[in-house]
Amino acid sequence: MAYKKISENDITFLKKTTAPERVYTNQDINDDFTHDEMMEYGKFSPEAVIEVINSHEISLIMRYAYEKNIPVTPRGSGTGLCGGSVALYGGILISLAKMNQILEIDETNLTVTVEPGVLLMDLVKALAGKELFYPPDPGEKTATIGGNVMTNAGGMRAVKYGVTRDYVRGMDIVLPDGEMIKVGGKIAKNSSGYSLKDLFIGSEGTLGIATKITLKLLPLPKKTISLLAPFQSLNDCLNIIPILFKAKIIPTAIELMQKEIIEATEKYLGKFFPDKSADSYLLLSFDGNAIGEVENSSDQAAQVLLNEKAIDVFIADTEERLDAIWTARGAFLEAIKTSTSQIDECDVVVPLDQMREFINYVDRLDDKEKIRIVNFGHAGDGNIHIYLCKDSLSNDEWQIKKDKVMQKMYKKALELGGQVSGEHGIGHAKRAFLAESLGNRSMELNKSIKKVFDPKNILNPGKVCY
Amino acid sequence: MAYKKISENDITFLKKTTAPERVYTNQDINDDFTHDEMMEYGKFSPEAVIEVINSHEISLIMRYAYEKNIPVTPRGSGTGLCGGSVALYGGILISLAKMNQILEIDETNLTVTVEPGVLLMDLVKALAGKELFYPPDPGEKTATIGGNVMTNAGGMRAVKYGVTRDYVRGMDIVLPDGEMIKVGGKIAKNSSGYSLKDLFIGSEGTLGIATKITLKLLPLPKKTISLLAPFQSLNDCLNIIPILFKAKIIPTAIELMQKEIIEATEKYLGKFFPDKSADSYLLLSFDGNAIGEVENSSDQAAQVLLNEKAIDVFIADTEERLDAIWTARGAFLEAIKTSTSQIDECDVVVPLDQMREFINYVDRLDDKEKIRIVNFGHAGDGNIHIYLCKDSLSNDEWQIKKDKVMQKMYKKALELGGQVSGEHGIGHAKRAFLAESLGNRSMELNKSIKKVFDPKNILNPGKVCY
Repeated sequence: MAYKKISENDITFLKKTTAPERVYTNQDINDDFTHDEMMEYGKFSPEAVIEVINSHEISLIMRYAYEKNIPVTPRGSGTGLCGGSVALYGGILISLAKMNQILEIDETNLTVTVEPGVLLMDLVKALAGKELFYPPDPGEKTATIGGNVMTNAGGMRAVKYGVTRDYVRGMDIVLPDGEMIKVGGKIAKNSSGYSLKDLFIGSEGTLGIATKITLKLLPLPKKTISLLAPFQSLNDCLNIIPILFKAKIIPTAIELMQKEIIEATEKYLGKFFPDKSADSYLLLSFDGNAIGEVENSSDQAAQVLLNEKAIDVFIADTEERLDAIWTARGAFLEAIKTSTSQIDECDVVVPLDQMREFINYVDRLDDKEKIRIVNFGHAGDGNIHIYLCKDSLSNDEWQIKKDKVMQKMYKKALELGGQVSGEHGIGHAKRAFLAESLGNRSMELNKSIKKVFDPKNILNPGKVCY
Repeated sequence: MAYKKISENDITFLKKTTAPERVYTNQDINDDFTHDEMMEYGKFSPEAVIEVINSHEISLIMRYAYEKNIPVTPRGSGTGLCGGSVALYGGILISLAKMNQILEIDETNLTVTVEPGVLLMDLVKALAGKELFYPPDPGEKTATIGGNVMTNAGGMRAVKYGVTRDYVRGMDIVLPDGEMIKVGGKIAKNSSGYSLKDLFIGSEGTLGIATKITLKLLPLPKKTISLLAPFQSLNDCLNIIPILFKAKIIPTAIELMQKEIIEATEKYLGKFFPDKSADSYLLLSFDGNAIGEVENSSDQAAQVLLNEKAIDVFIADTEERLDAIWTARGAFLEAIKTSTSQIDECDVVVPLDQMREFINYVDRLDDKEKIRIVNFGHAGDGNIHIYLCKDSLSNDEWQIKKDKVMQKMYKKALELGGQVSGEHGIGHAKRAFLAESLGNRSMELNKSIKKVFDPKNILNPGKVCY
């Protein structure tokens, strides 16, 4: 794609439109802006980084960039895992990190309105003070809400509460040519034309930039109980899940973890996990407003676990124990990264009853292809995070093996009725896999939609589909 | 729009492709197919009605119609209220009513897969036997699931459970040119490209025809309690709702009704409503799996109601009493229709805290414009159903007054941050109001999306935006 390179004149305009101290060029650009959490997917330098502070600035920048044919990449915290927020073709990188105000907590409509740069952890904290609750719970707490919306982030509590999409009520959007529109609103229902709102959600900043986001809230659950159940084998562990669902027991979260990853995490955090005697673990959590009901559900689940080969069931219902377990769970990715020289990751989602087959398939690949594969996952919603580790493989071996294994895994997921990404998105790293999985016509529809919003392909080019 | 008229040759092809006894033409076309539930919006005769029985037939019909430039209108039960399923430009009407099989109830993935012509009431019945529950609860139980999905139907239980969109996991779609694609799947999370699934939901059969739909289910709640609270005035009634939400009490449903409509319904049904001493009523319902918690929530709510000017609170927790109240609620629309010669309807949605202002505005319009306006609504989600009644107005007076009142109401809804339709959709009847409400750019985006899917505009033309 032939884009205009940024000139001195452009920089002058951009500085005048925003503020000189918020426009960075050349060696003043922090190296962090050249990659996301997956440095393995390459480093790409924007020609200018602009820290914006309001929608008006974004609109002016977009209008200018659109006219001049300069690519623009929007970015939150840069915690993505598919290269979605890197400036693949240079140009302008718009950092939304300074747009981090919680604009309104509305206790009547049960909504919160935020700027896109608000961090997930800051939102959670602000709401707790009002006894309110934003249910989606992606593992990366330093991600921005804008980033969460743009990848339709899922997280641990999707089993009971659904994903980010289910909580977005309305947004202000700057389109690629700078025009501003509103989608949705502070409303609970909407059947007024095609859902543009749902198109922007999960579009990874390729169709427009969200400058204001209104989210639905729920009352903060009064009680949370977690259960940690060790099992002698992975299959014992995986067999339980369909049984729980058939028994109409719906936990808030069900996480799957194996000994290897627990040990790596202990090492990484320098903290002990409550148990590591067994091969595989399920971590379940239950929450709600009626303490009796939460206890009752978790008792029922514990009984099912014990009937179905759980070696034991540890109950965590104090802040301290809950924290110890969930902190470890939150550190898995960092622990894996620390354990090896390079990783590649896959975030497929398969139907719940196909998870056992999928994970067993991955385990066999591990043996067959002689590459270390670590996985953990959201066992209650069929979303599995799989990490290939380079360890002592040569660069060539690594390249060949990881490509081969990835292709096989995506093929298998597709066979089982799954999709390429459960929650991390496509970015540029998974575009080929998405094309393969969706097939020609659906991929063409994606591209045509992109062209409707961004005919010059200047907003986050090279991502998702085009 | 210049479409090809259907010829004898076309009929021969269509009969060969499907079956002669399922293709109707001329006087064999049942009058029901010329309108939906709002005959006021006109009668439109298709040139041929085809009762299809599978996706293959639909695909062949679409491919043929696309090549020949014949418009096609898909239709379920025809229970819509905006003319969405009428053949505005003649051509082929595809009736999906015979595609009414429940294909699979999956108790592990907690999904049900249906053909689009399954009736809501039949789905509910089939699931109850398995102790499973499809939460959306639109008032019209003889609507098809396909129709519900295509209008993103809302219903009574949206306060707690959300709307149809929140329960669609995957669909098989026939595109306007006959090609078939799959969107989503039996999966709980998905961040794999733009959400085509969410574009089809609420698209009113203008982007593609759903031939198979997989819905998410929940365990059937073990207990339901309804509360009926009479109030001396509408404002007393409306004042309560923000107070309930601020107190973090989230009922399953909150319905608002006034004496006039209750009396009309008693007359229509020939059955007595439990109480009609007061001016206005709130009907609240609570459900859940823990009997104690349901009782507790409803007790808490009853206390709030009594503290805030409810004259009394009647509790309904037996099948019989629940049935008496909710049957009346379900018959409101028919009762209004029976009470007058013609109606027009409006289905706006506003933020919850603006509902009081909106309904009061409508009440003032009633007085000022000398037109009888009846309203009832989903008071817990800001979605209000407003019916203008012709009564003894002349045709000219009726035309002028209703247009004026409608325009004012939509303008007011927009001012309050609302949208044209909460759950009934746009069809052809509300296109002008949608255009006004969305503004040029969003309307253009809608049209451009339509062109991506249907460049020849042969699938349900004249609806939604184009």
